[in-house]
Amino acid sequence: MPLDSSAKGLFPIAVTPFLPDGRVDESSVDGMCDFYIQAGADGLTILGIMGEAQKLEPEEALGIVARVCRRIPVPVIVGVSSPGFAAMRSLARNAMERGAAGVMIAPPPSLRTDDQIVGYYAQAVEAVGEDVPFVVQDYPLTLSVVMTPKVIRTIVQNHPSCVMLKHEDWPGLEKISTLRAFQAEGSLRPLSILTGNGGLFLDFEMERGADGAMTGYAFPEMLADVIRLSGAGRRDEAHDLFDAHLPLVRYEQQAGIGLAVRKYVLQKRGAIRHDAQRKPASALSAAAKAEIDYLLSRLARFDGRAAL
Amino acid sequence: MPLDSSAKGLFPIAVTPFLPDGRVDESSVDGMCDFYIQAGADGLTILGIMGEAQKLEPEEALGIVARVCRRIPVPVIVGVSSPGFAAMRSLARNAMERGAAGVMIAPPPSLRTDDQIVGYYAQAVEAVGEDVPFVVQDYPLTLSVVMTPKVIRTIVQNHPSCVMLKHEDWPGLEKISTLRAFQAEGSLRPLSILTGNGGLFLDFEMERGADGAMTGYAFPEMLADVIRLSGAGRRDEAHDLFDAHLPLVRYEQQAGIGLAVRKYVLQKRGAIRHDAQRKPASALSAAAKAEIDYLLSRLARFDGRAAL
Amino acid sequence: MPLDSSAKGLFPIAVTPFLPDGRVDESSVDGMCDFYIQAGADGLTILGIMGEAQKLEPEEALGIVARVCRRIPVPVIVGVSSPGFAAMRSLARNAMERGAAGVMIAPPPSLRTDDQIVGYYAQAVEAVGEDVPFVVQDYPLTLSVVMTPKVIRTIVQNHPSCVMLKHEDWPGLEKISTLRAFQAEGSLRPLSILTGNGGLFLDFEMERGADGAMTGYAFPEMLADVIRLSGAGRRDEAHDLFDAHLPLVRYEQQAGIGLAVRKYVLQKRGAIRHDAQRKPASALSAAAKAEIDYLLSRLARFDGRAAL
Amino acid sequence: MPLDSSAKGLFPIAVTPFLPDGRVDESSVDGMCDFYIQAGADGLTILGIMGEAQKLEPEEALGIVARVCRRIPVPVIVGVSSPGFAAMRSLARNAMERGAAGVMIAPPPSLRTDDQIVGYYAQAVEAVGEDVPFVVQDYPLTLSVVMTPKVIRTIVQNHPSCVMLKHEDWPGLEKISTLRAFQAEGSLRPLSILTGNGGLFLDFEMERGADGAMTGYAFPEMLADVIRLSGAGRRDEAHDLFDAHLPLVRYEQQAGIGLAVRKYVLQKRGAIRHDAQRKPASALSAAAKAEIDYLLSRLARFDGRAAL
Repeated sequence: MPLDSSAKGLFPIAVTPFLPDGRVDESSVDGMCDFYIQAGADGLTILGIMGEAQKLEPEEALGIVARVCRRIPVPVIVGVSSPGFAAMRSLARNAMERGAAGVMIAPPPSLRTDDQIVGYYAQAVEAVGEDVPFVVQDYPLTLSVVMTPKVIRTIVQNHPSCVMLKHEDWPGLEKISTLRAFQAEGSLRPLSILTGNGGLFLDFEMERGADGAMTGYAFPEMLADVIRLSGAGRRDEAHDLFDAHLPLVRYEQQAGIGLAVRKYVLQKRGAIRHDAQRKPASALSAAAKAEIDYLLSRLARFDGRAAL
Repeated sequence: MPLDSSAKGLFPIAVTPFLPDGRVDESSVDGMCDFYIQAGADGLTILGIMGEAQKLEPEEALGIVARVCRRIPVPVIVGVSSPGFAAMRSLARNAMERGAAGVMIAPPPSLRTDDQIVGYYAQAVEAVGEDVPFVVQDYPLTLSVVMTPKVIRTIVQNHPSCVMLKHEDWPGLEKISTLRAFQAEGSLRPLSILTGNGGLFLDFEMERGADGAMTGYAFPEMLADVIRLSGAGRRDEAHDLFDAHLPLVRYEQQAGIGLAVRKYVLQKRGAIRHDAQRKPASALSAAAKAEIDYLLSRLARFDGRAAL
Repeated sequence: MPLDSSAKGLFPIAVTPFLPDGRVDESSVDGMCDFYIQAGADGLTILGIMGEAQKLEPEEALGIVARVCRRIPVPVIVGVSSPGFAAMRSLARNAMERGAAGVMIAPPPSLRTDDQIVGYYAQAVEAVGEDVPFVVQDYPLTLSVVMTPKVIRTIVQNHPSCVMLKHEDWPGLEKISTLRAFQAEGSLRPLSILTGNGGLFLDFEMERGADGAMTGYAFPEMLADVIRLSGAGRRDEAHDLFDAHLPLVRYEQQAGIGLAVRKYVLQKRGAIRHDAQRKPASALSAAAKAEIDYLLSRLARFDGRAAL
Repeated sequence: MPLDSSAKGLFPIAVTPFLPDGRVDESSVDGMCDFYIQAGADGLTILGIMGEAQKLEPEEALGIVARVCRRIPVPVIVGVSSPGFAAMRSLARNAMERGAAGVMIAPPPSLRTDDQIVGYYAQAVEAVGEDVPFVVQDYPLTLSVVMTPKVIRTIVQNHPSCVMLKHEDWPGLEKISTLRAFQAEGSLRPLSILTGNGGLFLDFEMERGADGAMTGYAFPEMLADVIRLSGAGRRDEAHDLFDAHLPLVRYEQQAGIGLAVRKYVLQKRGAIRHDAQRKPASALSAAAKAEIDYLLSRLARFDGRAAL
């Protein structure tokens, strides 16, 4: 089933499991897929920035795509961002053949002006093909490309295959409101908006009109629950759960070591066998691990899933 | 009393109060000083980045320095960062004459290499004079200058007048540990380390060896309490209080609108009369204000000081 | 006479003369003005980036404005870029009172999107007043703000007081052609375009439709001659003269030491008494000075004005 | 023959020939190799930034390596820079097996501190293997990583397999002098220094102590001649030839369209069959092509090789 603009809920950003020697940990992939499904995932996004996609060789990337698509009963989105359109096309076409539901495309950091951004996505659509549904990744903090709501609208209106926004601007709450206002006034067609930033603002993002989350926090269950509670209008409960997790969400959100924190927790939870990253990698000190353990023990008082 | 390396506790980063028409709100300055003192401040830092120092003209800046120094019974640190050393010297000498205890110097964003950073501080010390105690501001996220622990050590060892680090690296917990380890091994002399980043990691920063906080969160009482509790070894209590405030700390930490959030809350608390910023300014939408109000109401269940 | 969109020819970017001890060299200002006039200047721009404006205190800046405006019989443009609109307004109004013909405004490096840039200039016009003619400085290499031709057009169309573009994009030849095409099709009103980048592309910039140059090359006579020859359709002569100077133009264009090269040559030529910069400053090695001397001796074979 | 620190002369940065439809133009590769050899190349560097390496898929890259190594009788250096060490290792080992003499490694743009840079090269050496000779690419303008002479010295001293510096800092003349001074004082072992920046400063770089050039100017003959004349102490002749080419060198050096200029001239000279770039690509307007043609016609008066 191809991805479309009605997508909702939780699409975790999956990590890529590695063995301590740096090879892809094939045997962890299935278990990781099951973990995300059990956590309530409505879809899965692989080969994103936090998936260490840039460190993979093409055949490794495709191997992971194939394995995940075979295992998982929900839509799989594949990150295909690349410095060159040839590689982007190759990965996108091959991923769709192996069962992906859509692809995600981030702009290269060199883009500055509105026209450059709009033009880049036109070239990207030409490269991957108009038949491939795609997600625009809007992540200024890391990519240093700033897209206004109007630019996003132009991209969506220009390309029917644009079905989703991965919203990761910071601050970004007003952006969600502005895009939803565009739709209310009729100038923007339906668009799924899933939010990132490690979930740091998910509580209010849902209230502003997001359709769900696409991020990799090591307790995807919390993300799924907050989405559900918020959607059901149970505001205080959503915030209570969110706030209980916030100390850890915040800790995981540290630039530079965030992925190490995430993999450390995922390993403790049994989602992956090793917390190894492929080089270049960041590492956690003993003090950092102790801090995470302390945060988990505090969280466990509120959310039993953190009792590890 | 000049600032020295034994400084501890809470040094709030003060906002600069403006009238809605953009003039400095002189009459709010005294009340703001009293607010910070009542909140438990052990010192005060004025004319920092969050104090809109770049938007002030020299005579306005000195007027604020004089007024704050007259009002406040604790050490006042004055931000003197400037594109030129002439202006830096002028502000620093004049501020000290008016009663400041020391100055804070941030590196210009163009610096890249270790040698450039060390050389810049040597020039800055020559400019302000070796008799003026100064604080190194280490804030890569905004300034894009990255200082290793070794570079900080070199600056401290080169300049007896360097008495404090405003620690604002992100992630930064390991940096505190490394600097304290330098001191344990005898390669770094005593240095006060106060942390920033809006307080987002204060809970663990204190445990890693920070001497306190220098940041502008709109509830400085919480910062003072966490410093005190952590210093007294009451770890769980420190985290309990910190965690209760974290949803608001996080909301205030949003780049671009953080100052607007802070001033909005400070005005509600009566610390300043207007939440106006001098142009260019950021503004809060009605939705954002409602979100802050909601966060305050939730916080008030745990901390009565948030019941406004 | 206020600046208007019919401005043409050479508007050198003046250096600011300093004494070796860092004070402004007042006594050099008049001589420097005379030097530029004798070199064929049709106007003069002061307090730009290469004028070390950021290192001046407000009263120093105004002193220079007053002195230059008294001395010089051609329009004076004053750089008023500032992190805050209060200081921008103050300098702009004061400069106009002292006889300036207009002001130049560069965008702050934090701007990214088209809307941010357009919005910034709207705020700047509000600050300086709609009665003050202004120049848009378009200098991505140093300011990291990229303005499309459409953005420039929007600014010009929004603000009747926008009369000139300081064109310093790189590469930038197509930008001149595009703006002139906008005018040919009637979508852009008259606008003076003077080019910068140290003159490195002046030969072709004139052929693309520039009205002249606004840059600080130490032989402003060459710039004036090339503008004149190109305007008269004497293409080969223009290029012959330009090419003879290009080795030195190129040497002066080195980021970081360009100003030191420029001041070194201007001092040799008697335009200023000292080649000192206010700190932080760059310096020339003996080898660099010998290289410049060699370039001058080679240039003197073609252009006697370089025989020093 | 593996690359070593005695390498001298001209190592052109080769373009990668593409067909108009974006496929690699295999049939142009041999002719291009012959062109560079006839122009006086002492080595060849392929898959650099200007070789559009980032747009190639791994098997395409290796195909080019193999073909070039078969065709060319001089050392071939292969750019292996990559976001991940796995891909870097794979390309480096495969390239060496196919006959490469060494590899070139650029630092990723995220590096800031001296320690980060030194640490990155240690990891890179571990990845490609200590037996693979490598070139450090020092190119701050594009990569935004600034290496001091001391950092370069540390890398060279730490790794016997570091045999060459691609010097592309700007300004960079003092850096060459400093590195040669390190060697004179005995703190730096022998190191080949080849310079880049499109040749814009080659005249003086040779005089400061460079061993040659590694850059892609479309008249490599000029680079070879200047290196030879400068080495023979024929200073004025070297500058005369260099200056004649400088207008075109300067035109080719424009960020963003430089590669389009270079390929346009190389095609006119018969070195490649098409001036196509793989997408995303820059393009030349008719006006730009006419300007290049004019520059060529002017150059041809001095250097007959430009009569096309």
